[in-house]
Amino acid sequence: MDIQTTADKIRAGERRALARAITLVESTRRDDRAKAAELLSALGTDHQALRIGLSGTPGVGKSTFIESFGKMLTGQGLRVAVLAVDPSSTRSGGSILGDKTRMDLLSCDPNAFIRPSPSQTQLGGVARRTREAIALCEAAKFDVVLIETVGVGQSETAVAEMSDLFLLLLAPAGGDELQGVKRGIMETCDIILVNKADGDLKSQAMRTCADYASALRLMRKRAKDPPRDTHDFPKALVVSALQEDGIAAAWGEIQTLATWRKDNGIWDARRARQARFWFQEEVRAGLLSQLTSDKDVKAQLAALEDDVAQGKIRPAQAAEAMIAKLFPSASAKHNDTPA
Amino acid sequence: MDIQTTADKIRAGERRALARAITLVESTRRDDRAKAAELLSALGTDHQALRIGLSGTPGVGKSTFIESFGKMLTGQGLRVAVLAVDPSSTRSGGSILGDKTRMDLLSCDPNAFIRPSPSQTQLGGVARRTREAIALCEAAKFDVVLIETVGVGQSETAVAEMSDLFLLLLAPAGGDELQGVKRGIMETCDIILVNKADGDLKSQAMRTCADYASALRLMRKRAKDPPRDTHDFPKALVVSALQEDGIAAAWGEIQTLATWRKDNGIWDARRARQARFWFQEEVRAGLLSQLTSDKDVKAQLAALEDDVAQGKIRPAQAAEAMIAKLFPSASAKHNDTPA
Repeated sequence: MDIQTTADKIRAGERRALARAITLVESTRRDDRAKAAELLSALGTDHQALRIGLSGTPGVGKSTFIESFGKMLTGQGLRVAVLAVDPSSTRSGGSILGDKTRMDLLSCDPNAFIRPSPSQTQLGGVARRTREAIALCEAAKFDVVLIETVGVGQSETAVAEMSDLFLLLLAPAGGDELQGVKRGIMETCDIILVNKADGDLKSQAMRTCADYASALRLMRKRAKDPPRDTHDFPKALVVSALQEDGIAAAWGEIQTLATWRKDNGIWDARRARQARFWFQEEVRAGLLSQLTSDKDVKAQLAALEDDVAQGKIRPAQAAEAMIAKLFPSASAKHNDTPA
Repeated sequence: MDIQTTADKIRAGERRALARAITLVESTRRDDRAKAAELLSALGTDHQALRIGLSGTPGVGKSTFIESFGKMLTGQGLRVAVLAVDPSSTRSGGSILGDKTRMDLLSCDPNAFIRPSPSQTQLGGVARRTREAIALCEAAKFDVVLIETVGVGQSETAVAEMSDLFLLLLAPAGGDELQGVKRGIMETCDIILVNKADGDLKSQAMRTCADYASALRLMRKRAKDPPRDTHDFPKALVVSALQEDGIAAAWGEIQTLATWRKDNGIWDARRARQARFWFQEEVRAGLLSQLTSDKDVKAQLAALEDDVAQGKIRPAQAAEAMIAKLFPSASAKHNDTPA
């Protein structure tokens, strides 16, 4: 792969070049990683897409929503990329229901580019590759990059930390279930979309939406910091992805908030904060990888671990001994306990 | 605090000494940490309690269950300790509904010891302190240690990794909601308890229980490894914590599985595996703390972070530079990319 040619093709919007480049950034091979870094440097950062994070548990209709939403955007002449961050179950991978419905119509659209999640078990790796895939899509001058995740564990936070705007898609539910939504994620999201506002579920969806709207208002009131966005965000809306109802209204709200954030310096500040966050994450990941990349360190770890498993030493004690070996000077300071 | 006297009092089952010792292991002060390590070493590990992990989202009736379950156990003359691992929301701490109902009757029981979660935002710290609190409760010769957590994020995994048995408490739900339970946690739990099997919800609870029972059977069939427990575990049961129905049956199942695991070497193997796991976690946490404990390292991090925020360098690139500074030899190896 010639880096400069590939970069030119991506800038020209060639889908196959983009797809191959994403495969490159997804690779864990050391020589591929070097090439990926070279390609990203060659591409630079001269175009910003609107990065929209979208989270929702399985069954709320994420695929249907993305299909409706994406088709509306491409219908307006916008180019849309869809990337997925799909954390695997800790043990066996995948969701309990197996494969999910794909977005049939959108995937055939020449102005849309859909990329499933890389099959990688470590969230850290997926997060880095997704951020690099976003950079590639921006270089390919997509207008909107939609980053989709299922609402479990850390993947939601990771996606929020790589998005300009964060949407939470929910299903209509009884009032009692409101408490089940994690407060952290409600504080992170900009717009809650209550889906399935059609047929028998329509009135239930309206009620659920009203419940979330009050919860959001309550949280805004209680927030210690002054609200950073215009007074009516975060907000809750109803949509029917199936009947393509409310989708245009949701897009209108997204544009309003995005424009307001750009005009008020919040857009840039958010991207800068996110860059800091990911730098810190990368440093952490790099430190941990030292534990497995050095033979001597690995052997010492294994020996201590055996002692721990046999109950000869407590985990915390053994860990202190290990850190003392890795950072002799630092641990000397640590032992200098104040009297 | 005299370590040896405190150790003797804990071994004699003195609740106030135990409570003070837990406060000691919860402290982050360096001199307290040293004393805690000394106390834990003095106590040793001659008694094993049955460590039961219990998870469930807010509203499923965890407190009511623990009250019923705990009272039944103390009624049989058993001594029960209840520890909580309550992860805070990433931003503001606490659940959306605020304080939860406490266990009024159980907390007055002389054979019960209830300890709320330490107010600590980092899961790593809470996990270590909870493990140390478990060790203290075992030294105080409790028969059962119940470790309670809300079913969000990593706290569930953490509690599973410090339990001999893991219970998942669920509320009756429509069949559609079954998919919302994370597969990872279903694979981790030994017994699913569908609570609120009383009044109007009774038949719904039975249906939900049957649904989970089939899901568990399906997962067992699809599992690549041969099942490690007797053929009918993990299993799903209905209970009514409110009416104290099914609680004794659940305890019977817990005892059956615990005895079987002890007789088949799985109990000890599980504890050894968990010790290895926590050792690895402690080493990771210790490595990361190096980033904040050294002044020069902190300054270098801050400078690179500013460059990242200003878009001068990509997060991943900057992180590589940082790691290269921390581990000069290791990074030399890293750059030795195969051609």
